[in-house]
Amino acid sequence: MKPVKVGICGLGTVGGGTFNVLATNAQNIARRAGREIIVEQVAARSLNPACDTSNTKVTDDVFAVATNPDVDVIVELIGGYDVAKKLVLTAIENGKHVVTANKALIAVHGDEIFAAAEAKGVSVMYEAAVAGGIPIIKAIREGLAANRINWLAGIINGTGNFILTEMRDKGRDFYDVLKEAQELGYAEADPTFDVEGIDAAHKLTILSSIAYGIPLQFERCYTEGISKITREDVEFAEELGYRIKHLGVSRQTEKGIDLRVHPTLIPEARPIAKVDGVLNAVMVNGNAVGNTLYVGAGAGAGPTASAVVADLVDLARTMDADASVRVNHLAFDKIEDVQVLPIEEVETAYYLRIQVQDKAGVLASVATILSERGINIEAIIQKEPKEGEELAQIILLTHRIQEKNMNAAIAAIEGLDSTVGSVTRIRVEQLA
Amino acid sequence: MKPVKVGICGLGTVGGGTFNVLATNAQNIARRAGREIIVEQVAARSLNPACDTSNTKVTDDVFAVATNPDVDVIVELIGGYDVAKKLVLTAIENGKHVVTANKALIAVHGDEIFAAAEAKGVSVMYEAAVAGGIPIIKAIREGLAANRINWLAGIINGTGNFILTEMRDKGRDFYDVLKEAQELGYAEADPTFDVEGIDAAHKLTILSSIAYGIPLQFERCYTEGISKITREDVEFAEELGYRIKHLGVSRQTEKGIDLRVHPTLIPEARPIAKVDGVLNAVMVNGNAVGNTLYVGAGAGAGPTASAVVADLVDLARTMDADASVRVNHLAFDKIEDVQVLPIEEVETAYYLRIQVQDKAGVLASVATILSERGINIEAIIQKEPKEGEELAQIILLTHRIQEKNMNAAIAAIEGLDSTVGSVTRIRVEQLA
Repeated sequence: MKPVKVGICGLGTVGGGTFNVLATNAQNIARRAGREIIVEQVAARSLNPACDTSNTKVTDDVFAVATNPDVDVIVELIGGYDVAKKLVLTAIENGKHVVTANKALIAVHGDEIFAAAEAKGVSVMYEAAVAGGIPIIKAIREGLAANRINWLAGIINGTGNFILTEMRDKGRDFYDVLKEAQELGYAEADPTFDVEGIDAAHKLTILSSIAYGIPLQFERCYTEGISKITREDVEFAEELGYRIKHLGVSRQTEKGIDLRVHPTLIPEARPIAKVDGVLNAVMVNGNAVGNTLYVGAGAGAGPTASAVVADLVDLARTMDADASVRVNHLAFDKIEDVQVLPIEEVETAYYLRIQVQDKAGVLASVATILSERGINIEAIIQKEPKEGEELAQIILLTHRIQEKNMNAAIAAIEGLDSTVGSVTRIRVEQLA
Repeated sequence: MKPVKVGICGLGTVGGGTFNVLATNAQNIARRAGREIIVEQVAARSLNPACDTSNTKVTDDVFAVATNPDVDVIVELIGGYDVAKKLVLTAIENGKHVVTANKALIAVHGDEIFAAAEAKGVSVMYEAAVAGGIPIIKAIREGLAANRINWLAGIINGTGNFILTEMRDKGRDFYDVLKEAQELGYAEADPTFDVEGIDAAHKLTILSSIAYGIPLQFERCYTEGISKITREDVEFAEELGYRIKHLGVSRQTEKGIDLRVHPTLIPEARPIAKVDGVLNAVMVNGNAVGNTLYVGAGAGAGPTASAVVADLVDLARTMDADASVRVNHLAFDKIEDVQVLPIEEVETAYYLRIQVQDKAGVLASVATILSERGINIEAIIQKEPKEGEELAQIILLTHRIQEKNMNAAIAAIEGLDSTVGSVTRIRVEQLA
């Protein structure tokens, strides 16, 4: 069969990685795909010293690749929204398939892009957009196709996981570790996307669409970062048998769908609790299969290139056939619009840390507030004030309850004379 | 599109599960596949009370299904070798696709069956044959297609993992737990297949073929069971920071391919070390992606049905197109015959437990024997004799070394006057 001719747009970390994996593993890839996959053209603002492009056509104009009649598939690795979107739509308009690692683009503009691709009979592949080298898109779109997916939960931002791991393992503070992560290149100079959960929300939006067959709706994802997590909370969680992870959680309930990114206590006995450092992991629960877990590198040249090239191999096998042999963009032939629940409607369990004046009856007042709102206490730790201090700490784990009830309870607890400052609230998921 | 018509052969645990998943999740499955998947006929020696077959054609003759012109795909769930092989070949001869959960059949007769299927332009799908509901075949054949796979290692027998987990968690003995596993239905009356590693060897044979593009060669798989693992070894491993798991390990080296199932010490810090009970898990290391890990239920009606039906959905999408759009049976377009190394040539690290008389110079003699054979000691524990006993124990962890050198060292240690009985040897893998 004729080789597949690829145009790589963007030759940074991931673009360079893709270029090199296609070269290094060319023989294996051709043996698997049944045909060669060759780089016809590269668009880059500057060359990547890690790549030997001496025998490759190089341009600085990504649109020259998108309109190049010799290119079968463009690989969009420039990132961002505007140019990337125009590039992808131009490539589609020119009848080319697209492979992208751009989670923001898919989460925000995916519905429009997929519609354009379907009208042209081409495919937009995005395995690399979520959890790097872990083939999680394929697992959910294809591997678990027999299931009604009940829920999924993932550690889908390596920077955040690195920070939380260091906080726990070495007793360090958030801002101290963040600074190191920036020096190591794990975190951007502006870390908002990573530590405030926006990057994870992009990925969770994509995962939930392919799990339930709903439109992409990033704007409805509840997002809470990890910058307020303290060493104390990490230690109390540990004492209770839990780890704190920054999770994206999505659940299909009778009332609608949860879509939320926030710090979460998870039981330390779960294998996912051991997923440390920059690793990513996704748990998926299906009504036939039960729990499954997928772990691997969530970023980096090699892992992301692994996902990009897997998409190219899938295309190599199917691009000459009717589009119907390829998997639906969002996994489902027909997308159904199901309500995404506002966070107030979501049901979860909670960890609460309450600073109180050390006097009689305080615990009773807190317990009464909770019990009056139907909130059961699952575990409790009360710590004496430290030597020379006056404030005690009450740490509680509750049963599952709707968030709006918890909001009311927290407001009432904060209204007690004995309570000092705000109540710390971290959600808890058993992942059982 | 026209529905896909399925003939289910065998209505036991997995057959019944498949029948029920297709019914319960029919709507979801059709939304994903873009067409309905319906059960046209069932062959069963006796009906399964868990299945409502009142509206289904039922026969007691599996060959009637394999030759039924209204059936597009047969699902072989009768197990065993002879009848299953004849059934699958008959279905292929009649132009039908096949989905099977039969690991023994694929590991032993796969090459012949795949050749017959390719000659007819049909596919034999076997996701359910390895690690139940975990989509590991898809992950390796497709998700990691960009990679040269360096190694893989899996907990791929749930019975064995249940036994080892109970031994560790509750300090129980092997035969005590085995008896319970048999009562719970986790282990067969004849547990040989599970506890001696034959079942795991079938699965490892399949995984290594699709990882490296080599023929299936079950007969060359080294197999060692877990029946000789003692509570003591479990405890010493723990003391050294390891867990004992029954692993299938396969590694691609310059000299050839490792293919081996044996009890293995793995570092407790790895997420796979936390995979307990009847769960399965597979780690795969690729040269682009690094380490990836897949965890889930390795057996049972729902999980296995999940894998069977995922194969049916893949077929539903691709069966009307040219065979080239479907993935190669053993992942590679061209299979290359690479030598499987005899166990003596394999390189691994070792845990040794040596019972010795408690006298001066014993440790020095052991250390000398190892050092003369180029074997470095990584860690050591020496235990005093228990109160009232005369024998001491030396526990060693070594660096990686070829098995034949270790065999020679063990023979020499066993030849020392101070050594009592045989040396216990368990292989160690870092999975790093």
